[in-house]
Amino acid sequence: MATLILLRHGESDWNAKNLFTGWVDVALTEKGRAEAVRGGELLVEAGLLPDVLHTSLQRRAITTAHLALDAADRHWIPVRRSWRLNERHYGALQGKDKKQVKDQYGEEQFMLWRRSFDVPPPPLDDADEFSQVDDPRYADLGDDLPRTECLKDVIARLLPYWDGEVVPDLQAGKVVLIAAHGNSLRAIVKHLDGISDEDIAGLNIPTGMPLVYELDDAMHPTVPGGRYLDPEAAAAAAAAVANQGK
Amino acid sequence: MATLILLRHGESDWNAKNLFTGWVDVALTEKGRAEAVRGGELLVEAGLLPDVLHTSLQRRAITTAHLALDAADRHWIPVRRSWRLNERHYGALQGKDKKQVKDQYGEEQFMLWRRSFDVPPPPLDDADEFSQVDDPRYADLGDDLPRTECLKDVIARLLPYWDGEVVPDLQAGKVVLIAAHGNSLRAIVKHLDGISDEDIAGLNIPTGMPLVYELDDAMHPTVPGGRYLDPEAAAAAAAAVANQGK
Repeated sequence: MATLILLRHGESDWNAKNLFTGWVDVALTEKGRAEAVRGGELLVEAGLLPDVLHTSLQRRAITTAHLALDAADRHWIPVRRSWRLNERHYGALQGKDKKQVKDQYGEEQFMLWRRSFDVPPPPLDDADEFSQVDDPRYADLGDDLPRTECLKDVIARLLPYWDGEVVPDLQAGKVVLIAAHGNSLRAIVKHLDGISDEDIAGLNIPTGMPLVYELDDAMHPTVPGGRYLDPEAAAAAAAAVANQGK
Repeated sequence: MATLILLRHGESDWNAKNLFTGWVDVALTEKGRAEAVRGGELLVEAGLLPDVLHTSLQRRAITTAHLALDAADRHWIPVRRSWRLNERHYGALQGKDKKQVKDQYGEEQFMLWRRSFDVPPPPLDDADEFSQVDDPRYADLGDDLPRTECLKDVIARLLPYWDGEVVPDLQAGKVVLIAAHGNSLRAIVKHLDGISDEDIAGLNIPTGMPLVYELDDAMHPTVPGGRYLDPEAAAAAAAAVANQGK
């Protein structure tokens, strides 16, 4: 039996401003920092102490992990980072206001870009101020550097890391914490729970709420969907995520 | 040519209270957090961007590194941690007031415990509230878990990590940041600069000030003693460290 804890970063500056963020490396708000600390306290209350941390290369996930683990007195555990855990690249929508995009392109196109499985937004121009082509942390990616992604693309670039780096830690009996993003965590949940390409559209993961999976030796969840450590707060927060742009 | 950056953690709660800290895992003060951020800003101003971070297992070094790297936009670099970079274990002095110890045992004994090369304080009892025998992060150490240390002991447990983990990163051409502690950094400086067992007593490393060494292929400093990125502030701060307990 293996224990996996998924933690979406706390509220970021651009969550608060209702902008599409993707690979733009924004910071947490004060509310987001408090959510991260609360996430760590929930781990302690549940007696769930991570042995190893996996994060994306993005500040909002890295800071969330730092604050949560510090609150849980587990700040000293080993850390692994990968771009493969990054948020979905939102293409040309990065930096744009969600409500403006919806008003400009209509509800149907807006939801297609936000939640369809295989329709990416238009690609981001390399000259755009929100492009990552000159970001040193991605200098080794070469042709792997995305200019836009749909959820299907996220799954394709995430699974090699899941299989190659996360599963071995789980099989070694470690309690694994993954601090990441709405869409990279949706990709993992889709994979674990075998959610269909259609049904994944309705799944929203709230910020700062630890979601715990117990996995059997075949890496199948013993309880489908896992369990939130604070279920009532998680349900309310997931509803708020679903309502963004409305 | 390799670049090494040494960064002592910012002021901690127990620095501020003038208590012997050692392996007790105290937090940074607000002043210490500001020092860490300033350390990161100095790295940016000097154009020195770390490629990899090595830290101890202690909160004050881990938080200092997090804040400095976040300020330098290098929060995403790989991290390695080891107990071998921890502060010197201060034995039975851990948790005690420096001035009270000096008044009780006299100036000579006080300075012997603080700065002699090979005289450790009395060992800490395993039942003491400030013991680390039940700390999960050290559960694998077995007989290596110290109950007290002199600087000679710190060097002995630090050098295997230096040779085995840090030097390979330097030889690979990486800019290496070590975020650690007054005595673990004194151990590294003694090793690099070939400082005698007597002369190392006079060397004090200030909190939050990046100390940069350029090293040749044989890992010898091209400039003995390295250079502080803010030399005037570093000299004033080192004098303050030397005066602790007075």
